Amino acid sequence: MLRAQGRAVHQGDSGWVPVFVDREQSISLMSVGFLLEQPDEALVWRGPRKNALIKQFVSDVAWGQLDYLVVDTPPGTSDEHMAVVDALRPYSPLGALVVTTPQAVSVGDVRRELTFCRKVGLRVIGLVENMSGFVCPHCSECTNVFSKGGGEELARHAGVPFLGSVPLDPELTQSLEDGRDFIQDFPDSPAFPALSSIAQKILSETPVGLS
Amino acid sequence: MLRAQGRAVHQGDSGWVPVFVDREQSISLMSVGFLLEQPDEALVWRGPRKNALIKQFVSDVAWGQLDYLVVDTPPGTSDEHMAVVDALRPYSPLGALVVTTPQAVSVGDVRRELTFCRKVGLRVIGLVENMSGFVCPHCSECTNVFSKGGGEELARHAGVPFLGSVPLDPELTQSLEDGRDFIQDFPDSPAFPALSSIAQKILSETPVGLS
Repeated sequence: MLRAQGRAVHQGDSGWVPVFVDREQSISLMSVGFLLEQPDEALVWRGPRKNALIKQFVSDVAWGQLDYLVVDTPPGTSDEHMAVVDALRPYSPLGALVVTTPQAVSVGDVRRELTFCRKVGLRVIGLVENMSGFVCPHCSECTNVFSKGGGEELARHAGVPFLGSVPLDPELTQSLEDGRDFIQDFPDSPAFPALSSIAQKILSETPVGLS
Repeated sequence: MLRAQGRAVHQGDSGWVPVFVDREQSISLMSVGFLLEQPDEALVWRGPRKNALIKQFVSDVAWGQLDYLVVDTPPGTSDEHMAVVDALRPYSPLGALVVTTPQAVSVGDVRRELTFCRKVGLRVIGLVENMSGFVCPHCSECTNVFSKGGGEELARHAGVPFLGSVPLDPELTQSLEDGRDFIQDFPDSPAFPALSSIAQKILSETPVGLS
């Protein structure tokens, strides 16, 4: 998505130097993918080895001065999630942004994710519903491909802020597939105001410099 | 999906008795969800504890005479996957049915899943592309919400059988949400022939009694 495939991580004086996505070095990335010789290889690692690498990604990378550190985790409440929470605890993380899709099966999983946050003392910044309705590009009618409203209902029930819904948007998918600039290429896409409004809410909730 | 929520697993003479979904007892289920007092609780378990339970689900459940044992795993190549492969190895499992969605990000993950199968010596029965195009119920035009064809291309590239594509189908989602009988309620749904054809291919590839 960020056209960073095949880039390499180097060892610098103060740790691993992350991969810079843009010329201004405003976004830097770290991923286990950068450390593999074959990016298509499966990483058949058990929990303890993954946990150790997650800790290294926090402590041994020369992140420099960051406004935000975003950790994208897999779904679930397993080793990775515990390791991330443990590794970030000394830095008082702002909290968890929890994403669901509208259908009941997904909402059930995410309800357990919220329980996990409560158990480990991680604040929930808010909940987002993704893949929320599809506006047909041929007839402009909206269909709720995966039902609708499950995310908002869960947020209300769990007492966490609901930050908004992002519709299914083939233009967004296409941009991500091609590593293109979605905002520049599709300024009228229905996903854009949704994503922008969610980002604004997060930024106003979590001002840079507070933590 | 199977209206089995809230059901309980009992200890019988020859092990845990699984939950029967239908009156004919043609489908029996086992899930950690049946063992929890609070089904919404997060199971904050590290790898070894999960691995032990997966082994128990194979060895300590009174499965009786089965035609097929289907294990639904999360995405990835982690503890759960290794534990399932280890636990089933003595029974010579028929293989892995690998499901992807069409977009490149998902196909990349599934490519690593195929590498995993090769590494652990698990045959790949075939690959399925899910969420493959959406037929608008208002105007009948098809849109590739998440691009298209990634699954088939991956199967060709990896030299594994491609079993078919299942379109996004709001009627299927609705049936699953309500625990209704999809085949009976929506015999004309576009997902039905797709799912039926895939099931036929799997059955002809993996006849009961061979393993």
